[in-house]
Amino acid sequence: MSDLSAVLAHTDTTLNVSLERLFELLRIPSISTDPAFAAECRRAGQWLVDALTELGFTAELRDTPGHPMVVAHHPGATADAPHVLFYGHYDVQPVDPVEQWQTAPFEPSLREYSPGRKVITGRGSADDKGQLMTFVEACRAYKTVSGSLPCRVTILFEGEEESGSPSLKPFLEANAAELRADCALVCDTNMWDADTPAISAGLRGLVGEQITITAADRDLHSGYFGGAAANPIHILARILAGLHDADGRVTLDGFYDGVEETPAEILAMWDTLGRTAEGFLGEVGLSIPSGEKGRSVLEQTWARPTAEVNGIIGGYTGEGFKTVIAAQASAKVSFRLVGKQDPSAIRAAFRAYVESLVPADCSVSFHAHGGSPAIQLPYDSPLLGTAREALSDEWPQPAVMIGMGGSIPIVGDFQTLLGMESLLVGFGLADDRIHSPNEKYELQSFHKGMRSWIRILAALAERKDD
Amino acid sequence: MSDLSAVLAHTDTTLNVSLERLFELLRIPSISTDPAFAAECRRAGQWLVDALTELGFTAELRDTPGHPMVVAHHPGATADAPHVLFYGHYDVQPVDPVEQWQTAPFEPSLREYSPGRKVITGRGSADDKGQLMTFVEACRAYKTVSGSLPCRVTILFEGEEESGSPSLKPFLEANAAELRADCALVCDTNMWDADTPAISAGLRGLVGEQITITAADRDLHSGYFGGAAANPIHILARILAGLHDADGRVTLDGFYDGVEETPAEILAMWDTLGRTAEGFLGEVGLSIPSGEKGRSVLEQTWARPTAEVNGIIGGYTGEGFKTVIAAQASAKVSFRLVGKQDPSAIRAAFRAYVESLVPADCSVSFHAHGGSPAIQLPYDSPLLGTAREALSDEWPQPAVMIGMGGSIPIVGDFQTLLGMESLLVGFGLADDRIHSPNEKYELQSFHKGMRSWIRILAALAERKDD
Repeated sequence: MSDLSAVLAHTDTTLNVSLERLFELLRIPSISTDPAFAAECRRAGQWLVDALTELGFTAELRDTPGHPMVVAHHPGATADAPHVLFYGHYDVQPVDPVEQWQTAPFEPSLREYSPGRKVITGRGSADDKGQLMTFVEACRAYKTVSGSLPCRVTILFEGEEESGSPSLKPFLEANAAELRADCALVCDTNMWDADTPAISAGLRGLVGEQITITAADRDLHSGYFGGAAANPIHILARILAGLHDADGRVTLDGFYDGVEETPAEILAMWDTLGRTAEGFLGEVGLSIPSGEKGRSVLEQTWARPTAEVNGIIGGYTGEGFKTVIAAQASAKVSFRLVGKQDPSAIRAAFRAYVESLVPADCSVSFHAHGGSPAIQLPYDSPLLGTAREALSDEWPQPAVMIGMGGSIPIVGDFQTLLGMESLLVGFGLADDRIHSPNEKYELQSFHKGMRSWIRILAALAERKDD
Repeated sequence: MSDLSAVLAHTDTTLNVSLERLFELLRIPSISTDPAFAAECRRAGQWLVDALTELGFTAELRDTPGHPMVVAHHPGATADAPHVLFYGHYDVQPVDPVEQWQTAPFEPSLREYSPGRKVITGRGSADDKGQLMTFVEACRAYKTVSGSLPCRVTILFEGEEESGSPSLKPFLEANAAELRADCALVCDTNMWDADTPAISAGLRGLVGEQITITAADRDLHSGYFGGAAANPIHILARILAGLHDADGRVTLDGFYDGVEETPAEILAMWDTLGRTAEGFLGEVGLSIPSGEKGRSVLEQTWARPTAEVNGIIGGYTGEGFKTVIAAQASAKVSFRLVGKQDPSAIRAAFRAYVESLVPADCSVSFHAHGGSPAIQLPYDSPLLGTAREALSDEWPQPAVMIGMGGSIPIVGDFQTLLGMESLLVGFGLADDRIHSPNEKYELQSFHKGMRSWIRILAALAERKDD
């Protein structure tokens, strides 16, 4: 039996022990958004410090203005072993409405969903304690069987992910040298389906803008002024309607600069995933893709940039009717970016476009809401290739490389502040009900998740040896 | 001295008596919107019944579900005298914020604004007690000097005008035969300026519509669905942006059916009024007419139909940012109508237009908010001509025929329910601060207002004699 087989086998024979350890962590109500649970957050962090110390890590709690970070280091088996940074978060979402839970949120249990399908119940089981423990328990198996870890491992667990991670960026900046590794491993995402592991290779960036159009210096009566005075809602409607052309493309100057076409083989892979427009949109009562014509919904949501109006308000919006011409109208607009689109160039192009449509006697004010570039791992990156093979060895179906429509700020921070690529691999399923009552995590996700990390760590160590 | 001269002269010598009678009425706090003042509303109505009875009217209070109507009849001097219905309202607006009043709102006084310019202060002085008393006191002068009135006069004063006149239409319907006259005289409008009387010959109609676009069956995350799922704010923006063409014309099919061009001599008269775009829009911080190109602001607001979005809402509109694709977005849209535009045809055209732009997997719901046609007295109508001459005899400047951008529902009801044209003549000024603290009415408006009605009644009686 090879080393790897022995380590994998160890997870099979000690699954109940791993599970009991996860349950211990799940029993700690580490709700980060509610100050009443601050001590519990700290307790969860300390539990992880103790667990990692047992595995030979040099581990400690690091205070922040909010909840503490867990930072741990393991040197690995050899001096030239690759160095990975593993990221997860020990805090959880609140549990309201608690009466909708079928099991107590902080009394984890193993339940049989259907014959042969067992799930771990409880808040945090999937987001993110169950996921991060796949890695911790992978390390435990390696340590137990082989006496060390095949890679040099740094672990960073934060306790504020569900509160917007206010301390994370400053912490990364202040501890960049300590935390920098060859790559980051992030375990907070989903599988494609229960049999198919997924690696998120692209994350769209985001630019948010709020615009407010001001016309008259007061609200006007539409009888007295209607037909002569500028109506800021009309101006806003023209601006927003003009953001897309008839083919669903965004009209801003230079918007597609830096957007690369997705390789044909990746598009072909996505086509095999069976996500039809009817299926994807049908879940939310729609059926017709509204975006760029001639592209699949997966390409539209994973690999193409968008402009979306997220909110609009102006004039009288209460019950009944008021014949007013509003003084102001405003909208919140966001752009999802891909490839090498430049957030500041997109913001500038949007502002120039808006200004070009505002009449000379009206004005517009802008308010920026965040801006982050897209993250795109090259599809031919060795890191992706290695992880993909390792995952494909473990699961019934080969691993797929997918995109993510949204942003994960930590990945951008790792890239920007620490110069590291991130490997996003997670074992959640779409129906895990994270952030909702009755959160669960598949026992198979937990078990094969551990085994997946063992394979990935082994493969990364081998690759280094090549 | 002719009869007319004697009657006119009587108002000059008894102005103080007329004023004291107006003050009596102004002292009654007949605020119709506040149930606490219901008895005061009734008291104001009774005061008018008593006043009219003294003048030889058969007058009484008529109960309604709300505040009572005052109905009074005077047979006039001759059996074939023309029959006029005079309309006004005895209720007033609330007085908040009362601390901003420089004189007590229900303690009327005569104050000198500037040398030679006196004003009557108090709530209701201009809207509408001062105005309706110009007619009552005109009748008093006629009665005193000549023993009768030159016309048969029916008077209708309501007590709910500031509360939306809920009882008026049913009352007109129930008493149509009693109230029907040759024409209605309505005294609730303004002069063009302090020297120039005005007759409102056109009132724009109104169609209100609320539309709600529904896309997905729930709010969506713009990261996950953005680029594929329909965004109802985008759909709404396209609908609203498409309502006007580049020349400011409304694009709905058949929208301009029934719109007649204003006669050249009327446009020329309006051009002499000196209302420039810069002056009119400058008062509210604007300068560029935004409506139909090639038309003056007076024509735009008095004689042209419009489409205005009065309110819009959708998605996230709170502080900060939320990357949501809303399930719904809605807008309130109103159309001002002129000439013979058909409210129901406009509503149908709008709905068809909207539906044509809603994707097949989305839906739209409509909610109608009122619909009334425009009122347009023919500019060559004998009623207008007679009144115009009479007014021009009284005031420093000739009377002008103007339009009104808004609707006055009573005028439509008189037309529809009683088949009468209305003559809208009033003596308010734009700076009377009706509905606001420190409402006032010019003493000259009160005095020359009485004299104007005397001249109009005389002219109408003479015209009948022709």
